[in-house]
Amino acid sequence: MTIESIALGVEYDGSAFSGFQWQPHAPSVQQALELALTRVADAPVRVAPAGRTDAGVHATGQVVAFSVPVFRPASAWVAGTNAHLPEGVRVTWTQTVDANFHPRFSAVARRYMYVFIERGSRHERASPLLGRRAIDAPKLDDLAMHKAAQALVGEQDFSAVRGAGCQSLSAWRNVHRVVVHRAGPFVVIDIVANAFLLHMVRNIAGVLRQVGEGRRPEGWVRDLLASRDRTQGPATAPPQGLYLVQVTYPGYTFPLADPPPMLRALGGLERF
Amino acid sequence: MTIESIALGVEYDGSAFSGFQWQPHAPSVQQALELALTRVADAPVRVAPAGRTDAGVHATGQVVAFSVPVFRPASAWVAGTNAHLPEGVRVTWTQTVDANFHPRFSAVARRYMYVFIERGSRHERASPLLGRRAIDAPKLDDLAMHKAAQALVGEQDFSAVRGAGCQSLSAWRNVHRVVVHRAGPFVVIDIVANAFLLHMVRNIAGVLRQVGEGRRPEGWVRDLLASRDRTQGPATAPPQGLYLVQVTYPGYTFPLADPPPMLRALGGLERF
Repeated sequence: MTIESIALGVEYDGSAFSGFQWQPHAPSVQQALELALTRVADAPVRVAPAGRTDAGVHATGQVVAFSVPVFRPASAWVAGTNAHLPEGVRVTWTQTVDANFHPRFSAVARRYMYVFIERGSRHERASPLLGRRAIDAPKLDDLAMHKAAQALVGEQDFSAVRGAGCQSLSAWRNVHRVVVHRAGPFVVIDIVANAFLLHMVRNIAGVLRQVGEGRRPEGWVRDLLASRDRTQGPATAPPQGLYLVQVTYPGYTFPLADPPPMLRALGGLERF
Repeated sequence: MTIESIALGVEYDGSAFSGFQWQPHAPSVQQALELALTRVADAPVRVAPAGRTDAGVHATGQVVAFSVPVFRPASAWVAGTNAHLPEGVRVTWTQTVDANFHPRFSAVARRYMYVFIERGSRHERASPLLGRRAIDAPKLDDLAMHKAAQALVGEQDFSAVRGAGCQSLSAWRNVHRVVVHRAGPFVVIDIVANAFLLHMVRNIAGVLRQVGEGRRPEGWVRDLLASRDRTQGPATAPPQGLYLVQVTYPGYTFPLADPPPMLRALGGLERF
């Protein structure tokens, strides 16, 4: 009997689930995927994700993998699984992988986007159409945010933006690239690192928002990181602004995911 | 006692309601607004809308009006009302209007947008993040759709795109302008008329999609309109792709609404 190892690209609306991971009494992305895949495989399937996103966090480029003792064509893993999935989640692609592939441990880079939407002066409340997709903010200085964010680049100790309860043995991570850019009323933090600590992107979003609102100078980010003290920073930004958009693996070229919905009109992920 | 007549701009997520109008056992935009406004006015408020949008249809530029025997500052009608509204709806602006202003009968033009999202070849299912915001379609020839759509312009009999159950005395309407354009993976029908018949925009969307998919030639739209026969056309397009974005009144300059969320990154409504 041959064991097949399969990777899937997954997109989901974080508002529809209590996070990626199985929960005893709440709907999770993992549960939805495993129930659907088990029906397609006609055998129990457990999936492992590239990242265990929190409740409310969206994904356009989550990667999961699993092994099954059956062969199914690619169309079964995509269209067949989708036929059994609820509206809030879909499989976007599939590819056969080596038996030693692990979506989390094999990954060498993750890319996240955090999306703010600026309130116009007349907007005293978040848009109903964007409420769970982007975080309402006052006017932001995106150029100051971009400059301040460059202090994050490189291999360093990120204790200052590490969430309480993070179980990682080390607070060192390597941020490869961070770009803050404006698209209409949206201000987007686009960040790539080898890996992220618990709540790291949301804490960075909270920090950069302080700079964007003019509450802190650009140089503060460097000082904050040097302090290694989480209590020096602001509150963690809400999960609904966060999107897992891409995960990179050596030796595999998976299809490029879509950007978050409000940025899709601007084109593919390449230009971000 | 002075009676104040007030107009409000309203944005809502159509997925959150069973349409604009009061329903006995289902949440409506009207019910949400009236409950909130009644609390702000401390007196019973009934609102009239510019258009009674169907269940699933969104609005960024709905206009409602009401009369109350109390004075409240603009901030109460906007921020105060918003404080009592559920997440799916908000008031975006307010303005005092003449006693004879009626949001429906005083309007001289309505603008709607209908949004399709093109499936890439790998997308065998609608995006979970866009499922109730745009309608999944195969590759569309937006230029052919735009050219075909020009047959809609002008004052004519729109029986061929009139929904069954439409109670209007006449099927004549005047389409001022229609533009079909592409924005990334989105194809948008942007249409302005003096008024619309029941399901008229959704029926037009269904018709233009036939042209966009190459199932019908551009000249078919003119022939279909000339037939005045609804049974010649395709099914009504789903409500979730439709947005009421602007209503125009002589003598009033209300604030410009936002475009649908997936198009906001491209800028204000002016450019559409």
